[in-house]
Amino acid sequence: MPNKLLIAVAETLDKTRLLNPIIHHITNYVTANDCANVTLAVGASPIMADDELEINDITALSQALVINIGTLNQQSTKAIFLAGKQANSLGIPIILDPVGAGISNFRNQTLEKLLQIVEITVIRGNLSEISYLAGYHTQPKGVDVASNNQFSQLESQELAKLLAKRYQTIVAITGKIDIISDGKHTFLVKNGVADLQKITGTGCMLTSLIASFCASTPNQPLVATLTALLTMGICGELAVEKNKEQGSSSLKNKLIDSLNTLTHQTVRERAIFEQTTD
Amino acid sequence: MPNKLLIAVAETLDKTRLLNPIIHHITNYVTANDCANVTLAVGASPIMADDELEINDITALSQALVINIGTLNQQSTKAIFLAGKQANSLGIPIILDPVGAGISNFRNQTLEKLLQIVEITVIRGNLSEISYLAGYHTQPKGVDVASNNQFSQLESQELAKLLAKRYQTIVAITGKIDIISDGKHTFLVKNGVADLQKITGTGCMLTSLIASFCASTPNQPLVATLTALLTMGICGELAVEKNKEQGSSSLKNKLIDSLNTLTHQTVRERAIFEQTTD
Amino acid sequence: MPNKLLIAVAETLDKTRLLNPIIHHITNYVTANDCANVTLAVGASPIMADDELEINDITALSQALVINIGTLNQQSTKAIFLAGKQANSLGIPIILDPVGAGISNFRNQTLEKLLQIVEITVIRGNLSEISYLAGYHTQPKGVDVASNNQFSQLESQELAKLLAKRYQTIVAITGKIDIISDGKHTFLVKNGVADLQKITGTGCMLTSLIASFCASTPNQPLVATLTALLTMGICGELAVEKNKEQGSSSLKNKLIDSLNTLTHQTVRERAIFEQTTD
Repeated sequence: MPNKLLIAVAETLDKTRLLNPIIHHITNYVTANDCANVTLAVGASPIMADDELEINDITALSQALVINIGTLNQQSTKAIFLAGKQANSLGIPIILDPVGAGISNFRNQTLEKLLQIVEITVIRGNLSEISYLAGYHTQPKGVDVASNNQFSQLESQELAKLLAKRYQTIVAITGKIDIISDGKHTFLVKNGVADLQKITGTGCMLTSLIASFCASTPNQPLVATLTALLTMGICGELAVEKNKEQGSSSLKNKLIDSLNTLTHQTVRERAIFEQTTD
Repeated sequence: MPNKLLIAVAETLDKTRLLNPIIHHITNYVTANDCANVTLAVGASPIMADDELEINDITALSQALVINIGTLNQQSTKAIFLAGKQANSLGIPIILDPVGAGISNFRNQTLEKLLQIVEITVIRGNLSEISYLAGYHTQPKGVDVASNNQFSQLESQELAKLLAKRYQTIVAITGKIDIISDGKHTFLVKNGVADLQKITGTGCMLTSLIASFCASTPNQPLVATLTALLTMGICGELAVEKNKEQGSSSLKNKLIDSLNTLTHQTVRERAIFEQTTD
Repeated sequence: MPNKLLIAVAETLDKTRLLNPIIHHITNYVTANDCANVTLAVGASPIMADDELEINDITALSQALVINIGTLNQQSTKAIFLAGKQANSLGIPIILDPVGAGISNFRNQTLEKLLQIVEITVIRGNLSEISYLAGYHTQPKGVDVASNNQFSQLESQELAKLLAKRYQTIVAITGKIDIISDGKHTFLVKNGVADLQKITGTGCMLTSLIASFCASTPNQPLVATLTALLTMGICGELAVEKNKEQGSSSLKNKLIDSLNTLTHQTVRERAIFEQTTD
C-alpha cells in the first residue's frame, strides 16, 4: 500500500510542475512572500488578491483557493466569503488555514460561519487550532506554537476524524507527528523536524503546498495533502542536515531551496508514514 | 554608441549611490520587503505609504513614485490617484507596474483610468500585461508568469513602441529578451536568466530599480530604464553562477547580494544589448 | 556595575527563551516577516493583528505590545488606540516605533495623540524620529535613514533624556552609538555596524526585540532595552564578520541566524557600553 501511495505522491509532484496551476491566496501579510515562493518552488503559480471587487474574477481563473486568516480583517473577510462561494460553485478546491482559531471572537465567529456556508476541501492547522474547531476550547499560546499537551496522539487522531466527518472534509493536524484524516482513512506522517518552529509561517507554507497539489490533482485531495506533508517534512529534514546549526534564517532558505529541488527518489527514500482505515 | 551608453549607465549607478533618492512605493504586501531591500541595495531609500491621508506629504518629499497594483484594493486605489496627480504636478517620475493587467475588471478599469489621468514615465510589465494594455486581451496565466507565446519577438517590440507612443511614455517588456521603447528608440537587453521565474517579485523588484535610477537621473528616464534592466539581468546571471543549483531561496539572496555589490566593471564586461532608432 | 548589568542581560535572554512570551504587533507589512522571525529567534512568540474587532482579545493574551507606524493607515490607527488603552489597563508593556515621525501630518498627529492618551514603556527610533518627537522639526530623509547631523552626541543624549522625562518613558535612539535613557540613567551602547543600514527594517526588528525582552522581564524595561540593543549590535558585528562582503541579503540572514544562536558568553565578551546617572 505505501508503495502504491508513494507512486501517487510522485505523480502529484510531477503533475504540479507540469500544469503550473494558479493558486489564489487570501492570506496574511506576514508570510505572504514565503507562501508565494514555496508555491513557485513546487511548480504552481501564486496570486494574492483580497479586494471584494476582484474576487470573482480571480477565483474564476484559479485552480485552488487558500483561505488563511492570519491577519484577518473586515475587508478580507468579505473577500473570503465571496471567494469561498465562487470556488464552491466552480468546483475549485478550498484549503483553509484557521490561523489562531480560538484566539479572538472575530476569528472564531468568522470560522464558524465559513464552515457553515462554504464547503472546505482541506483544513490544516496545529493541534490547538484543530481542537478549537472540534469544540475543545482551551487557552491558545500564540499563532506560532503548535504544542498542546492536552491531547494524546490517539486522541488527536480522533479529533481529526471527528472534525473531518462533521464537515465532510479532510483535516490535517501538523506537529511532531502529522495527522491526516478524511473521517475514514487516516495517515500519520513521521517526517519533519522541531527546528522549523523557529521560523514563522511554516504552517502557512504547508497550506500553500496542500493547495498547489490539490490544484493539480483535484480528484485526489487526500493524496495531495499527504504529498504536501511528506514534502514539507522531508524538506525540513534536508534543511536541518544542510544547515549545520547556522540559525533560523539560513534554515528557512534551505527549506525553500529543498522544496524547489526535491526529487522523487528523495521522497521515496525518506518518506515515513502509516495508514489506517476504519 | 553602446560605449557612450555604458558610460551613462555607469554614471546612473554612481549618482544613485551618491544621491540616495527617496522612492515612494504604493505597492503590494507580497513583495514589499524585497522591493525595499533592492532599493537600498542600489543606494536609494524606500518609503512604502498608501493611506490617502498622508499621500500628498509623502509624495512631496520623494524623488520617484512606484505604482504597483499587485494587491490592489479600494483604499490603495484612492492613494494611487492622489499620489499620481501630486507627482505629476511636482514633476516627479512615476513608474507603473501593471501587475496582473487583464486579470480582473477592477485592475483593468483602474489602469485605464490611471493612464488617462496621470502621466506615467515608465510602464514595466511582462508581455501578457503589456499586450493587455496595448489592446490585445488574452487569458492571463497568473501574475508570476511572463511567457506569452502569442507574439513573436518583433511583434513584441512593435507592441512596446505602440504603447509608448500612445501614452508618450517609456515601455519596458521584461522576459527572455527585454524590450525598452520610448516610441522612437528601442533597446533589446539580452542579459538575464530563466531561473529568476522561480522567485516571486523579480518584476516588482525591477520596477523599484527603474524608479531608483529615474529618481537620480530624472532627465534620462530611457537610460535609467536601460540601467535597471541591465543591472537586473547581469545580477541574475551572477546569482545563478554563484548559486550552484542550491534552489530558489538562495538564488534570491544572491540576486540581492549581487545588486548590492555590483561594480561598473562587471556591467561593462557583461552588458549585452542592442539599440535601434526609427 | 557593567558586570552586574551583564548578568541581568544574560538573565533576560534566558527568561525570554524559557517563558516564550507572546508579542502582539500592530506593525507595517514591509518588515512584518522579519519582525516575526527575530521575535522567534530570541524565544518569544509573535502575533500580528490589527483589526479593531479583535484587538481587545489579542492584547489580553499578550505579554507585550509593539506599535509600529511604518505603513500607518486609518484602519490600523483605530487598532493602535484600542490596543494601547487595553495594554495600559492590563499593565502590559508597550513599545512604540515612531517610523517616519515628521514625515506626514497623519503620522505626526497620530503620534501626538498616542503619547497624550497612552503610556508608552519604551520609544525606539532613529535620531531624526526622536528629535521630531522632542520638538525639533527638521526635514526627514526617508524611513531607512538614521543619520541626522544636526545634533552632537551629547545633544542627542540630552534629547533622549528630555523626551524620557516628558513622557515618563524610556527612550532609545539607535544609530552609530545607541543611546538609552529613562531620564535619570543613560546608557551608551557602542556595539553595531553601519552595514545594517543596507537592510530594511533593522529598526523595526530592534523594536520587536525590545518588546520580547520587556515581555519576559516587565519590571526591568531599562535592562530589557539594553539587552535588545546589545544583542542587535553584537549580532550585527557577528553577521558582518561571517558575511565576508557577500552583500545585503546574506547579511540579513546572518543577522537573524546570529540572534537565534547567540550565547551568554558572546554577549559577555563583546558588549561595549557605558552608563551615566544624574
